[in-house]
Amino acid sequence: MRNHDAGHTPVTVIGLGLMGQALAGAFLRAGHPTTVWNRTAAKAEDLVAQGATLAGSVGDAVAASPLVVVCVSNYEAMHELLDPLGGVLDGRVLVNLTSGTSRVARETAQRAAPLGGTYLDGAIMAIPQAIGTADAVILYSGPQAAFDSYESTLRSLGAGTYLGADHGLSSLYDVALLGVMWSVLNGFLQGAALAGTAGVDATTFAPIANTVIRTVTDWVPGYARQIDEGAYPADDSTIDTHLGAMAHLVHESEFLGVNADLPRHIKALTDQAVTDGHGGSGYAAMIEQFRRPSEARG
Amino acid sequence: MRNHDAGHTPVTVIGLGLMGQALAGAFLRAGHPTTVWNRTAAKAEDLVAQGATLAGSVGDAVAASPLVVVCVSNYEAMHELLDPLGGVLDGRVLVNLTSGTSRVARETAQRAAPLGGTYLDGAIMAIPQAIGTADAVILYSGPQAAFDSYESTLRSLGAGTYLGADHGLSSLYDVALLGVMWSVLNGFLQGAALAGTAGVDATTFAPIANTVIRTVTDWVPGYARQIDEGAYPADDSTIDTHLGAMAHLVHESEFLGVNADLPRHIKALTDQAVTDGHGGSGYAAMIEQFRRPSEARG
Repeated sequence: MRNHDAGHTPVTVIGLGLMGQALAGAFLRAGHPTTVWNRTAAKAEDLVAQGATLAGSVGDAVAASPLVVVCVSNYEAMHELLDPLGGVLDGRVLVNLTSGTSRVARETAQRAAPLGGTYLDGAIMAIPQAIGTADAVILYSGPQAAFDSYESTLRSLGAGTYLGADHGLSSLYDVALLGVMWSVLNGFLQGAALAGTAGVDATTFAPIANTVIRTVTDWVPGYARQIDEGAYPADDSTIDTHLGAMAHLVHESEFLGVNADLPRHIKALTDQAVTDGHGGSGYAAMIEQFRRPSEARG
Repeated sequence: MRNHDAGHTPVTVIGLGLMGQALAGAFLRAGHPTTVWNRTAAKAEDLVAQGATLAGSVGDAVAASPLVVVCVSNYEAMHELLDPLGGVLDGRVLVNLTSGTSRVARETAQRAAPLGGTYLDGAIMAIPQAIGTADAVILYSGPQAAFDSYESTLRSLGAGTYLGADHGLSSLYDVALLGVMWSVLNGFLQGAALAGTAGVDATTFAPIANTVIRTVTDWVPGYARQIDEGAYPADDSTIDTHLGAMAHLVHESEFLGVNADLPRHIKALTDQAVTDGHGGSGYAAMIEQFRRPSEARG
């Protein structure tokens, strides 16, 4: 694939919700001729004032640029817009930044094939306000040549990370990383609720919670190596030791009247690891609990 | 209280499990005359070789130093050792670093009062290998004068943090922070299990997971302020938006055959927040779910 990125590649953005507007705005600020389309044309007004071209139809929008970025509410909405277009995608790269599951992303890649063009699936790990900065991590998966060809243009949107040829990877990473995010946030909220029972403000609890969170990031690479090697020596603390402290967390949460569901989940999963013979293993052995459906346990 | 910390304060360590040995070793390395006692005297051998004095009885051990650190398996074990001693604790500071709940710590402070001396409860947020370094965070609660009096001696063990006069605070922070730790680890493991279904190694997933974890620490102070103010404007993303993505996480986990308990817990709690009218709030509004028992919901 020819590298189209010499100079300011024309781009098209389809879907102008908050995120779509942020994407188009970032392309405009980076100097790319930017064509936009949205079902409700009024959402394009600010962007047109910034120099964007409002296309009269989806087909015109796609025809205007070699790189077409779609950011609509779901995959079905994307199919409704693009499936009728036929060959107009030929020779273009379509980047779909709509959220979904990996299964739908893979199906979409198959459905997109007859439309011509090259399909990249993507996922945005950022809020609209961060788009256009290095803080906005955007994941891409699909044919590498298509990503390489437009990498510098896509860098106008944020820190682009190419994950691999499997179209499902960006959606899979997306939900996996969102799960990490919610887990960290919920851990903080559980802790803040507990500390709050003794009159400790969340703002007082926050810095020490953040110290613990950052300390865990120091352990993650080592645990990841153990997971890949399938051996979990207890270099720091055994699962048995963790389990004793988890009982305190459950009792403390129940006694103090805060929500004990998360503590009970943490402990139940670890009880199962001990039942499976991992009491003397390090915490990384818990991966075996996460890898299989809960129905298969016990 | 007179400051005893000029020079090298004599210290006593009772309980020589892995952690107790690490504590005594750190005191010795910092130059403190260190008396030790353990039910099984053989565990003192290495420390004696490093210069520690092995006391013949718990009473002798307590009598040897103005600062007595106890690190035994649980609070009952501590009571069995110390309750028979009577007035020997008079004028001394007893620091209990045994793990437990805040209720037990408060009860212990009441039971310790007739023994004389001053009681500090503490919690060690570190593995034995980290003791004696700035990486070992140790939490203390109880009378501030007692902490201030021995702060520099206790710094031999790690980074001491005084939390307040309420004896329950260090145990409460301990379980709250361990809950944060397990939540972060479990979030990583859930994500690694999901990514693993597409053949992604944990070591490949780890760096981007860590990027997300560190990003969340940037949000925590702002969310904490919202929690303390009791107002949760959606500056970044609404709970409704989170909920849509949580459905993807649940479906993805179920479809790919990994454990879906944690995703379902994350979503169920958020469903309840929407039912409570917080769909348009920011994620910090979830604190209200964590503050009350799950039985009280729905």
